[in-house]
Amino acid sequence: MTSGGPGASAGQQAGLKAVALGGGHGLFNTLTAVRYLTPHVTAVVTVGDDGGSSGRLRNELGGIPPGDLRMALAALMGAPAAVDDQLARDPAAAARHKRWSRILQHRLGGYGALAGHPVGNLMLAGVEELTGDVVQALDAMVDLFGIDGRVLPMATVPLVIEADVSGLESDPRMSRVIRGQVAVATTPGKVRRVRVIPTEPAPCGEAVDAIMAADVVTLGPGSWFSSVIPHVLVPGQVEALRATTARKVLFVNLANEPGETTGFSVERHLHVLHAHADSMRVDDVVVDAASVPAGSERDHLERAAASFGARLVVADLAVPGTHEHDPRKSAQTLARLLGGGS
Amino acid sequence: MTSGGPGASAGQQAGLKAVALGGGHGLFNTLTAVRYLTPHVTAVVTVGDDGGSSGRLRNELGGIPPGDLRMALAALMGAPAAVDDQLARDPAAAARHKRWSRILQHRLGGYGALAGHPVGNLMLAGVEELTGDVVQALDAMVDLFGIDGRVLPMATVPLVIEADVSGLESDPRMSRVIRGQVAVATTPGKVRRVRVIPTEPAPCGEAVDAIMAADVVTLGPGSWFSSVIPHVLVPGQVEALRATTARKVLFVNLANEPGETTGFSVERHLHVLHAHADSMRVDDVVVDAASVPAGSERDHLERAAASFGARLVVADLAVPGTHEHDPRKSAQTLARLLGGGS
Repeated sequence: MTSGGPGASAGQQAGLKAVALGGGHGLFNTLTAVRYLTPHVTAVVTVGDDGGSSGRLRNELGGIPPGDLRMALAALMGAPAAVDDQLARDPAAAARHKRWSRILQHRLGGYGALAGHPVGNLMLAGVEELTGDVVQALDAMVDLFGIDGRVLPMATVPLVIEADVSGLESDPRMSRVIRGQVAVATTPGKVRRVRVIPTEPAPCGEAVDAIMAADVVTLGPGSWFSSVIPHVLVPGQVEALRATTARKVLFVNLANEPGETTGFSVERHLHVLHAHADSMRVDDVVVDAASVPAGSERDHLERAAASFGARLVVADLAVPGTHEHDPRKSAQTLARLLGGGS
Repeated sequence: MTSGGPGASAGQQAGLKAVALGGGHGLFNTLTAVRYLTPHVTAVVTVGDDGGSSGRLRNELGGIPPGDLRMALAALMGAPAAVDDQLARDPAAAARHKRWSRILQHRLGGYGALAGHPVGNLMLAGVEELTGDVVQALDAMVDLFGIDGRVLPMATVPLVIEADVSGLESDPRMSRVIRGQVAVATTPGKVRRVRVIPTEPAPCGEAVDAIMAADVVTLGPGSWFSSVIPHVLVPGQVEALRATTARKVLFVNLANEPGETTGFSVERHLHVLHAHADSMRVDDVVVDAASVPAGSERDHLERAAASFGARLVVADLAVPGTHEHDPRKSAQTLARLLGGGS
């Protein structure tokens, strides 16, 4: 284990089954963290992206936007975590994971029609087109790369993210409908509420099974309206979260995203999530120590966590000088929660 | 073994190392044939394609045109041959080969910029762009898919095929220079001579090593001017063919290609190859029984073979009712040649 990280000796839990819900860089970060504890990781990924390579592929080929899924595949191969045992057991497999994690993430260059497409997006879109089934396509990738885990979509049809946004008109009480993940994530207005279209989509059956079989399920951090909240807009998935015996851990963002959550406090993050899923229960709401105000405001935060039936967990989580979670610190916090009971 | 094919019992030769030179569908066919005899197969592939997906990728990204290389990778995974032992030893690996052979060959649909690109071309182009080295890229693919063999380019820079073509002017003695593999392969004129640009390219060192270490090397069948003759325009490769102790077997096309070899007899195929590489020697020139004329014309054919120091081998090779080699029949012929000595 590299210095400073929790290793097999520190936090690894034999046979632990983890599911991480999210999308984009936030999910990549959490998957890296969880892999310090166990290789048995299922990523469940948002499918609403309409920007960049994913948007182009979605428009051209009609399948699930592959970008967030590709990042999750790369995370399950590329992490330094990768459970050190594996490196010792099979150095060729570890080298293969490192190489193909980089390849999946590599964006084609040039000045032509392919510029900017990550290799992994093109592979995944092609396999999905051939098999006609995104779960089969993902399983084929997982099998090919020898990944000890699984990547699944939140829903098996592409979703459109739509939001009610205020502050775009001269009258601040007026609200407008903004459609598309990129538009929502970058709006200069205030996002009040998000929906997915089609509404109440069926969950991915395999994701529900994974949640039910898990020992721990994480949600967040990530773009709150476009990568985190969509997970609670799939009724079957919320139902599974309620029914599972897994420990449910919500990671709140360290800093507000430019755009959709500009100026949001931690408490506001919790309120807005709760407003979208008031029946959801979690065990732990994990926030960064530097984000927690002192005095009576901390009481407000504890009450916001309690609205999910959760206790507030305050920990040092940031990469110093940044607004990103340090996966090793997230892993240490998770290990503590899982080791110490509720 | 499926009925009618040479199986492990019929033709397989333990430890036999084979190298197949060619390009396109002809090479795919030969690789399938050779894999009935051994899994230790190295494909050495032309790099002059400028049409279709390969041409688009070559123009956009500047690397080696990937199409012929991708087909060879697919051939080393997809053949029913796949050496039956493997199927019995590791059914999961055999299923993975079958699946990914199809995926590599699958051409993206839709109506956009990606339409028509085979998934394998995009993968290979991406890995080459990232590694900056086509041999490293091919080895990464071979490693990932668990292929017991290797695919190598004939040269490590993209080549341009150029031909002197007559019959395009009203004066039949006039000759014109036609440039580009597609243009040469489809010219309505008579191809007199082909060149590659840059001329006398350096061979791929790994291909030379494979030829030197081989027990058998095949050349052809295939598009004669654009997939077969280019192999003898790489001086270092011709030198390796002269120096190796491998048995060298030339498969002549069953039927003339529309375009570049319209109206060519078997004898003409041999003459034109010889005109491009008069120092080349092979052990066997294998022609289809139905292509061999009777009487004195057969003497001419034997003399044409003798110009390479070769004996003429006449065998039933065709898929009935077509102008394609039946890989099982090619394999039987090869097994006979290798079993029976020269």
